[in-house]
Order: sequence, then structure tokens, then C-alpha cells
Amino acid sequence: MKYSFRNDYGEIGNPEIIKVLYDSAYEQTLGYGFDQYTQALEQKFRKITKENLNVYLVSAGTQTNMILIDKALRNYEAVIAVDTGHVNVHETGAIEGSGHKILTVKGVEGKLTPEEVLEVLAKHSDCHMVIPKLVYISNSTELGTVYRCEEIKALYRLCQEKGLYLYIDGARLAAALASTLADYTLVEIAKYSDAFYLGGTKNGVLYGEALLIKHEKLKEQFHYHLKNKGGMLAKSYVVAKMFLRLLEEDLYLNNARHANRCADILVAGLEQLKVTHLPHNHTNQIFLTLKNEEISLLNKDYDFEIWSPGEKESMIRLVTSWATDIAMCETLIGDLTKILHQKM
Amino acid sequence: MKYSFRNDYGEIGNPEIIKVLYDSAYEQTLGYGFDQYTQALEQKFRKITKENLNVYLVSAGTQTNMILIDKALRNYEAVIAVDTGHVNVHETGAIEGSGHKILTVKGVEGKLTPEEVLEVLAKHSDCHMVIPKLVYISNSTELGTVYRCEEIKALYRLCQEKGLYLYIDGARLAAALASTLADYTLVEIAKYSDAFYLGGTKNGVLYGEALLIKHEKLKEQFHYHLKNKGGMLAKSYVVAKMFLRLLEEDLYLNNARHANRCADILVAGLEQLKVTHLPHNHTNQIFLTLKNEEISLLNKDYDFEIWSPGEKESMIRLVTSWATDIAMCETLIGDLTKILHQKM
Amino acid sequence: MKYSFRNDYGEIGNPEIIKVLYDSAYEQTLGYGFDQYTQALEQKFRKITKENLNVYLVSAGTQTNMILIDKALRNYEAVIAVDTGHVNVHETGAIEGSGHKILTVKGVEGKLTPEEVLEVLAKHSDCHMVIPKLVYISNSTELGTVYRCEEIKALYRLCQEKGLYLYIDGARLAAALASTLADYTLVEIAKYSDAFYLGGTKNGVLYGEALLIKHEKLKEQFHYHLKNKGGMLAKSYVVAKMFLRLLEEDLYLNNARHANRCADILVAGLEQLKVTHLPHNHTNQIFLTLKNEEISLLNKDYDFEIWSPGEKESMIRLVTSWATDIAMCETLIGDLTKILHQKM
Amino acid sequence: MKYSFRNDYGEIGNPEIIKVLYDSAYEQTLGYGFDQYTQALEQKFRKITKENLNVYLVSAGTQTNMILIDKALRNYEAVIAVDTGHVNVHETGAIEGSGHKILTVKGVEGKLTPEEVLEVLAKHSDCHMVIPKLVYISNSTELGTVYRCEEIKALYRLCQEKGLYLYIDGARLAAALASTLADYTLVEIAKYSDAFYLGGTKNGVLYGEALLIKHEKLKEQFHYHLKNKGGMLAKSYVVAKMFLRLLEEDLYLNNARHANRCADILVAGLEQLKVTHLPHNHTNQIFLTLKNEEISLLNKDYDFEIWSPGEKESMIRLVTSWATDIAMCETLIGDLTKILHQKM
Repeated sequence: MKYSFRNDYGEIGNPEIIKVLYDSAYEQTLGYGFDQYTQALEQKFRKITKENLNVYLVSAGTQTNMILIDKALRNYEAVIAVDTGHVNVHETGAIEGSGHKILTVKGVEGKLTPEEVLEVLAKHSDCHMVIPKLVYISNSTELGTVYRCEEIKALYRLCQEKGLYLYIDGARLAAALASTLADYTLVEIAKYSDAFYLGGTKNGVLYGEALLIKHEKLKEQFHYHLKNKGGMLAKSYVVAKMFLRLLEEDLYLNNARHANRCADILVAGLEQLKVTHLPHNHTNQIFLTLKNEEISLLNKDYDFEIWSPGEKESMIRLVTSWATDIAMCETLIGDLTKILHQKM
Repeated sequence: MKYSFRNDYGEIGNPEIIKVLYDSAYEQTLGYGFDQYTQALEQKFRKITKENLNVYLVSAGTQTNMILIDKALRNYEAVIAVDTGHVNVHETGAIEGSGHKILTVKGVEGKLTPEEVLEVLAKHSDCHMVIPKLVYISNSTELGTVYRCEEIKALYRLCQEKGLYLYIDGARLAAALASTLADYTLVEIAKYSDAFYLGGTKNGVLYGEALLIKHEKLKEQFHYHLKNKGGMLAKSYVVAKMFLRLLEEDLYLNNARHANRCADILVAGLEQLKVTHLPHNHTNQIFLTLKNEEISLLNKDYDFEIWSPGEKESMIRLVTSWATDIAMCETLIGDLTKILHQKM
Repeated sequence: MKYSFRNDYGEIGNPEIIKVLYDSAYEQTLGYGFDQYTQALEQKFRKITKENLNVYLVSAGTQTNMILIDKALRNYEAVIAVDTGHVNVHETGAIEGSGHKILTVKGVEGKLTPEEVLEVLAKHSDCHMVIPKLVYISNSTELGTVYRCEEIKALYRLCQEKGLYLYIDGARLAAALASTLADYTLVEIAKYSDAFYLGGTKNGVLYGEALLIKHEKLKEQFHYHLKNKGGMLAKSYVVAKMFLRLLEEDLYLNNARHANRCADILVAGLEQLKVTHLPHNHTNQIFLTLKNEEISLLNKDYDFEIWSPGEKESMIRLVTSWATDIAMCETLIGDLTKILHQKM
Repeated sequence: MKYSFRNDYGEIGNPEIIKVLYDSAYEQTLGYGFDQYTQALEQKFRKITKENLNVYLVSAGTQTNMILIDKALRNYEAVIAVDTGHVNVHETGAIEGSGHKILTVKGVEGKLTPEEVLEVLAKHSDCHMVIPKLVYISNSTELGTVYRCEEIKALYRLCQEKGLYLYIDGARLAAALASTLADYTLVEIAKYSDAFYLGGTKNGVLYGEALLIKHEKLKEQFHYHLKNKGGMLAKSYVVAKMFLRLLEEDLYLNNARHANRCADILVAGLEQLKVTHLPHNHTNQIFLTLKNEEISLLNKDYDFEIWSPGEKESMIRLVTSWATDIAMCETLIGDLTKILHQKM
């Protein structure tokens, strides 16, 4: 069987987390997020960030983005995002499906700049065009890059000045926080955004994302909105218990550090082999370019995604996870070395 | 601490099911429902029912209803349901929120009749009114009652004749199948409907519902639709593994039989005490009426829902689950006996 | 050819109004409602009502209801209406199609009572149910009845107390204002509502309704919302010019008075003939019951709607308009007299 | 007062058309598009085009686009359009507001190419991305250009091959048909598209667009859909009567020819003055670039839109209409000559 570098949600879940559920299987708890575990989780996030965050536990990332954005916007209001943004490319139109246009800009290495936000605002001036109202960024981004603290701060300042919301898609927020390039923690993420989510699905949890809302207007009647959009979980407390474990002893950071470390090993190998790859910001996604026949050979033993297929060469994506076997990273580099030497 | 008869999703999950996940925590699997476990589950459902069902794993009941109904209907088409139906009362407008009117009728003991469907059809005759297109029933119903095989068959026949879909909300389908009144199995449920779901959340699974679609038109591009509505789970295979365990050795039926047996014990006690209650169809929901001061006394040691509050007396709901302690049912009846005798 | 009592939008338009357009056919005007005529109309409505109303000109009644309600409500918020309400029965699900549940009550002669509003509020108490947020009434109603000033005032007071919007569907508002039962004018309509519309389509205008918004929150970014819903008219000024004429010399009231007077003639005749009819509030809709063979005979020379068909007898609707020929009302009564005498 | 070259919907309407309404003001007709005039119009369009077109009369262009597109697509399906397309820029998110993503490409002079359609298709390959399903083009385009017959045919052939709909926004279709570059008539427009509309608002009609649907699947239950979206007009027959007059003696072409001729006069003048302008395809929109101080001077006597403002020079748009005074075109060129000579 092939070893998979396809994604970071391919392994069931960190056994430490599953054990918590197993050990309290018969315990009785209130439903729908009104339980003591969701409350404890909220308190914990508030204590960590010193911000008055509300927590809502949702089952999946696209759903989280869709529900938060639909709460923030009326149908004549729009999202600003880079064109590689998950909401723009990989959500099968979920944002538009719930009524909202996405205004896209090019971005720099997957990251949005304040200048681009200003350009979009300048173009939207009358009632025949949408009102840009929410800035969407992902951190780490869809290209594996990481925002610097100053960059997030600058976007947030601009949003506050212009009356926009700043929302951070944190499907891989732990990967960003665990990156050696991250000059911030959850404190700054909470401080410089109106809402964000800490992804569990890609961080060793069975399922679930923790949506954290700071802006008071976005909190209003959120439970009603969540239920209306199909996002309310009867057993919300199961996700709460998993996230409580994730925050304990920084398990979320440790899960991410492991994945990032595996990626660093892979990149070190690639660089020695002079394989072209996109900028590596020490997170768990690597985008590299190989000749198609090399990819076929590598694909015999390893599973991964062809990100951008070409006629002669293609870009593939390798993703490491909390569960990746470090030894397999080294084995892959060894195998790739052989493939490349054979071919040259 | 109080013992809870509040609902059947208040305990984390059957340890047998959690164990499956724990034991394969590091196993690598494909995402989004394209994995071997989802395939195996689909095969299993097809084998059991002899119908060409497609299976889609969704995280919650309201979401499942919303997504299936939105797939089946255009905005000018409507649902027919009894006014006590979950889609009508307890989904915070999720069906209307995704664009569809619900046409309600009174029903009989929570169940829809073919005559009522015909009445709705007769009233909707021109393009200034919606087109009734999908019949929604729950089994077991929101009042704990159970359809008989002939009743479902009659509704399905009528739907086929009139070009309507019949969709069965199976949040508590296992409770219905395990009822002594059920003269059918999953075979007939699949045979006499266009789509239904087998609820996991209320049957000992950590989370998740198995939506089963038979009608070919509803299957078309369903993965796209699921993603667009925020319902696609990256780790769909986790739910698949839990449902595979649920189907093994009829665990879903055994979970439900246990809950129903607990309810039978409670009802037997209530009848001896001559407490008024709604018709008991041997499922796990009991609706009984007590004086408000009796309710207060009972509420000291037991948690439950006040279903329909009144000035002097109120209707409360007791729900048993796969995890209910049989001894606690007997204790509750004992305590209620004392309360009633003191009061009289 | 048959003479039509089918509806009040069956004749093209009052020639006085068309003449205004003909006489200024080449005049150049700004588009989209930012012109001097829309401004003049707004000033005129403000002067008449002493309220700070904004005016928006929309092409049709269902569209007006849909757009105003969708501005007022989020998807988890709902409308309260009588079950005979136009939004509930005759808009092909437009309100639900734009995301909002309608909670219906029985009403009294087509009118909503404060008690019914309170009953709906009492039932909606947690986040699993929608939040009732807008009260919808029609005046005159779908049954031709008219609210009294105290009734509207009581509903408005209740709405203000409970944080609800009161919206009046005025498709036939002129008919209500012109009724001898109306103890109010546009002043009170504006004073005791958050928004209403004065219907043009049923009052001799070529097309168009004047939506008048008083509540500041509903006015916010309304032009954006209007455009987003497809309701903005490039030549909004054409409707403005027609409504300016309608307000001149009380043409809207005179149009309605004529229609109501025709209806009074018909009702007087029906009463002499002892024909059963719904309560007549001196507006332009009459609902009467005849034997089916009588209806067939009457239908030879007159066009009208069979409102509620029965096996032996049916209820039909006669509608008079600004253009109805008074002589034809008398002729109809004469013909009906013959039909009834022949049959008896 | 300034003379306006701001748009082609700034004058009330062709008196020939208004006269038709005036002369039949009291005539009685059936509502909602089920009348003899709508039927006659449909027959006329079928006779002209030899295609089995259905006609639906809608009040405005954005509404027409929104309603047709929402009929054609599910929420996970998308539109392909050039980024200057009206649906993308100037409809305040109406298409996304009703649930559909627009995938944009650059286009060539405002026109979409088959190569661009193929590129979009190639990028959309799995269920995490929308399904491109409808190709949207405008003719004449938002930049005043005109498709050649071969270009439309090539797009239609491609759409048929790939299972896409081709929809033509004809807000200014008459301008295209009247252009000296148009090597086709309504016959080819109908032949090489699945649906299109012939715009009335910009062609001298008081209001209204004639949506013409050829594809059988798009016709299904269209009246229900139209009503559900708020697009059904009670007095649809008023629009029908105006369009019947428009088709009589080729009034729609004559109206457009007049506008195009006025534009030709303006462009001839601009070229003599060596003023930079976008390619002129002999339709009624002209985009020219002037220094900002020149624009200010011209703006004293003429009203027009600043299309693309710059620091030193800006692009302005001049639009001519069915009602434009030819003499004023010559006067404008005279005045511009003086302005440019003064400045140089």
C-alpha cells in the first residue's frame, strides 16, 4: 500500500483525543452547545487570548466559512479575497450559494495586501455594484505561506478604518502558529481579527472546527443562524471535549509542529536535489515541480495530489500531518533521489 | 447530579463504536466520502435492502433534511408535512432559509395521511401558488408514534402516482424499526421511499447521519450539492466506520431496543399510576401530563423537557436512549409514586 | 365579448396618467430613482403624511413584498400573517424563496389580531425555532375587508413593544382609504406602520407600486438591496410621474371611490336577491355564493373568478375597478335576477 | 439645462408606443401573461425567427438576467462571462445573490472567446469546484462592440458540445442588429442561443424586456419560477402591446439605427479631432479619453458618465438613443473642437 502525503485529514485522529471520548462514553451532557464543556472551552480561549471571544463548534471548514460570512453580509455585500483563496476555488460555490459575491485580487504568495483591498474599495462606488464588506484571509494560506504579525495588523487596521470585517480562515491555523516564521500566537490572531477559526479536522481531531467570534455584531443571535444553516450539532459537547484536549499541554501546537518538522525534512531533501518548489514558510504543505515521468515513478509508492498538471512537467503537493511517519519522509527523499538520478 | 431523560443524544457514544476509531487512529484513508469504508457501507446498505441506494454521510439531522430537500426542489416547489414535523417547527426555518415553503396539515398522532396529501394537491392548481413536490414524514414521529407498513406504502404509492418524492426523516428510524409495532425492516423503508436517513446521533454514534438516496434524479451531482451546502465532511470515513460498526451484529437495533425497553418500563409505571400520556408506540419518547408542582418535585432528581407548559399542569417529555440505566427508570417510577401519593 | 369583473388590473390605465407620459415623451431624466420626479413624489408623500418616508418605486406587488420583507429579516427570522394573506397563498413561495418562514394564524375576516400575534410570540422561545420579527397585514385585505384605525394602531403598538416590524401590503390600499368604513387617511397608515406600499397596478397606473419606508433601519442601503433583488427600474421616473399624477387632485382616491361605488351597487343588488356573500366593507371585491348552474349562466356574459369551487355551489369573486362601467353593474344584477328567478 | 448623452434610457418613451396604450386605455385584458397580446407577440417572434420560442415579459434587465440564470442553474453550477460583463460588475451581486458563482475571463474587446470557455472548463474537474454550466454574453457588449455571426455560432456549437447553455443579454440587442457590422438578424440570434432577451428599456419602450427562451428545459414551469422571483407582471399585456408596436414596421431597428447614426456622427467628429476612443462597432456607446480639464468644460453643457476616472485624464462614455437630437451631436463636436483648440 502507498504511503500518503495527500492531505492532513487522512488519518482518523490523535488517540489522545479519542481516548477522552472513550473514557466518558456514558456521561450525560446538555446538547447544542449549551453544555459545560463548550463553556469551559470558551473560557479557555478567552483566558488565552484576553479577548471576549464566543466559541461555536462546527463540523467542517467550508461550512464554517459559509456560515460566518453569511452572518456578516447581506446579499448586496461582498467578500474580498485572493483568487487562490479556499472560499473562491474549493468550496463549490458555497459562498455564492448563500448569496455573496467574492471579489478577487491576485495576492502575493497566497497572501492579501492592504493595497489590494484599497484598490477593490476604490472601484466600488455606487449602488449598481456590491459593497465590499468582509476581508477573507487564510493562515497558513492555500499555498502554505504564513502571514507576518505586521501584515495581519495592517489588514485589520485598514478594515477597522473602512468599516470592513477581517475574518481569518484557520483550517491550518495551527500550522501557521507552529511555523518558525510566526511572530505571534493566538493572542494576536484574536486581537487583529473580528472572527477566526481554529481548525480541528486538519489537526488530529475526529471532526470539527472552533469558530471564534470577537465582533459583537457577529455574535448576535448566532445560535439561531447556526441552526438555520444546518450547522448546529446536537452533540456539540463531543467537539468541545476534543478541543479541550487539543488546548491542553499545547497539543494543537505539538500536532502542528510535528507536521511542519516533517515538511522541513522533505524540503531540505528537495533543495539538496535542486527540485523547484514554491516558497516554503515552514508549514505542512509543499508544492514542487517534477517531470511527469518522475511523478509517475514516485506515485508508485506514495500518494499525493497533482496540483497543477502540465504537458511535460507538473506541480504536485505533498502534505504532512500530525500523524506523518518521519522515517517515511526520509524514505521518500531517498526514493526521489534514485528516480532523479536514474532519469538524468 | 440529576439523571437525564432529556434526550437521546446526551451521552457521548457507544464505547464499541469509539473503540473502532481508537484502534485505527493512524490508518490512512481518502477524504470526502470517496474511501473504502463509505463504499463498504454503501454495499452493506444495498445488500440489506436490495435497493440501489447511494449513501452520503452528513453531520446532523437538520442539515440532512435541508440538503436533501434543497436537492429535490426548486424554489417554487414545496414540502408537504404535518404541522408537528421537525422541518416545520424545530429547524429554525432551515427549509425556508434554503428557499422552500412547507405546506402543513394536521396529521393524526403525528403521522401524515394520504387524504391530507390529496387535499393539499387539490388546493394548488395555478402558477400563483407553489407546486407541492415532496412529502416529508418522520418515523418514529416527533410524538413518538410509528407508521405501519401499509401507511408508508400508501403514501409512497400516492407519491408515485402524483409525481411527488417521499422522504423519510429517520432521526429516530432505529427506534421505529425496534418498536414492537413495526411490521417492516430497512427493506421496506428503502422500498417505499425515494430517500431516507438512518440517524446515528440519536443511536449511539459520536455524530453523523447516513442519508440513503434511491431516486436516480436525487443522486445526480449530489457530491457537488453537498459541498455547496457546507455538508461535505473531509473525514467522512470516520462516520462510515462508525456506521459499519452500527450495522454489525444489528447494533443499531440493539441500541434502539434497549431505549424502547426502558421507555416501556416507564410507561408501564405511568399506567399503573394512571398518569395521562400520549399514545405509546413502544419507542423511546414519552409525553405525559403532570401538575406543575409534581413536575417541580420530579425535576429535583431528574432532568427532562417541559414540552408544553400550562398554568396548572404541563406536558413533559421523557426520552430514553441506548445508554439509559434501566434501574433509573424503575427509580423514577418509584419517586413519582411517592410524589403523587404525597400530593393526593 | 364578455364584460370582465375578474380583477382590477385588467384595464390598461387611466388615460389621464398615460397622457402625462405622452406629453413628455422626449424629456431627458436621470435613471434609477435619482431623478427630480422621484424626489418630488417623496416630498409629496412626506408633506401628506408628516412622516419622514423614503419612496422606492417597484414594478409589482409580490416583488414589493418580497424585497421589503427580505430587507427586514435574516433567514432565521419570520413573518406573522393570516393564512389568507397574499404572501402566504398567492406568491408562489416568493417569501420562502428568498429565505423566510411565514407563521400563519387564522385571522378574523381576513384581518390579523394582536392576540394572534401574542400567541405566535409565546410559542417561539428558543433557538430551534424561528424568531417572529415582521407582522404582515393587507389593507384592504384579500377578503375585501378593511382595518379600522384602532386595529392598526393596536397592532403597531404591540409591534413596537415587542420589537417587531409592522408592514402593510397596500396593493388595494386606495380601496381601503376610499371605503366608507375607513376612519383614517394616509397620515395614519404612515404613522402606525414601519413600511407600507400604495399600489398603483390596481389603481389605474400602467404598472408600479410606491413602497414607502419609515423605519430608519429598513432604509439603510435600500438602493443596493433593490438592485440586488432585481427590483431597480432604470426608468423609475416613469413610475414617479404616474404616481405624481395619481396624488394630484386625489386621483388615487377617486379611482378607488369609483370602484367601491360600483361594488356597492352590486352588493345592494345581491342583498335584494338574498344572495349569500362575505361581509362587504365597501371596497371593490365581492365574494358571493351561487349554485353552479347559476354561475354557468352568469358566466356566459360576464368574466369573473371561481374563488372556491364546490360540488353543488361555489363562491365566486366579482371585482370592480377604476374603469368599471357602472351601467354594467346594473346590467349584471338584472341578468342575475333573471337567472335566479328562472331557477327558483 | 444640459443635454444628456448619459444613457439610452433617459427619455420616457417613443410616442408611437405610448399612443398605443392611450388609445386602448379602457380595454379589458387577462393578466399575468396569459392574454392575447402576449400570445400574438410570441407568434410574431416565432414567425420572425422560425424557432419555437416562448416569450416572457419582465420589467428590467438585471431582473431578466437573474431570473433566467437562476432557472438554468443549481447553486453548484456557475456562469462563464467576461469580467466586464453586466452580470459581473453592474448588478450589485444579483446573480450571486440568487446563488450562482460567475467565473470570469478577460475577453477580447468585451467579447468572450471559445478558447476562454475551454480554459474555464479545463480548470473545473472535481466536486470541490463549481460546474460551469451557462455561458453569458452581451450583444452589443458593455464596451459597445458587436459579435460577428461566426463568433456567436462558434460559442453556441461549443456550448452544445459541452452541455452548456448559451444565453445572450440583449439589453442593447437592437443596437447590435442595427450596427453595420452585424451580419445577422433575430433569426441567427435565436438559432445560435438557448435564450436571449430583446431589450425594450433602452429602445424607446416605457419599461420592459422580452425574454425569449428556446431550450425546452428552461421553459419548464417558467411562470412559477417568474412569480417566485417577483418577476411576474399583472399587466404583462401592457408590455406585450408595446413590443408588438416595436416589432411593427421594424420600429426596434429604426429606433436603434437612429441611435447608431448619432454615434457615428460623434465618432466621425472625434476622429477628426484625433481623440482617442475604444473601437467603435457602429453601436450607440462611445468610450473616449480626454484630459480632466477638457471634461470639465464639456460637462458644462453636456451630461455624460465618467467611465474610468484618472488623475490627469479620464475615459468618459457618450451614449446616444432613439431620441437623441442629431443636431446636438454636431453641436457637441463643435463645442469639443473649441475646447481642444483653446487648450492646445
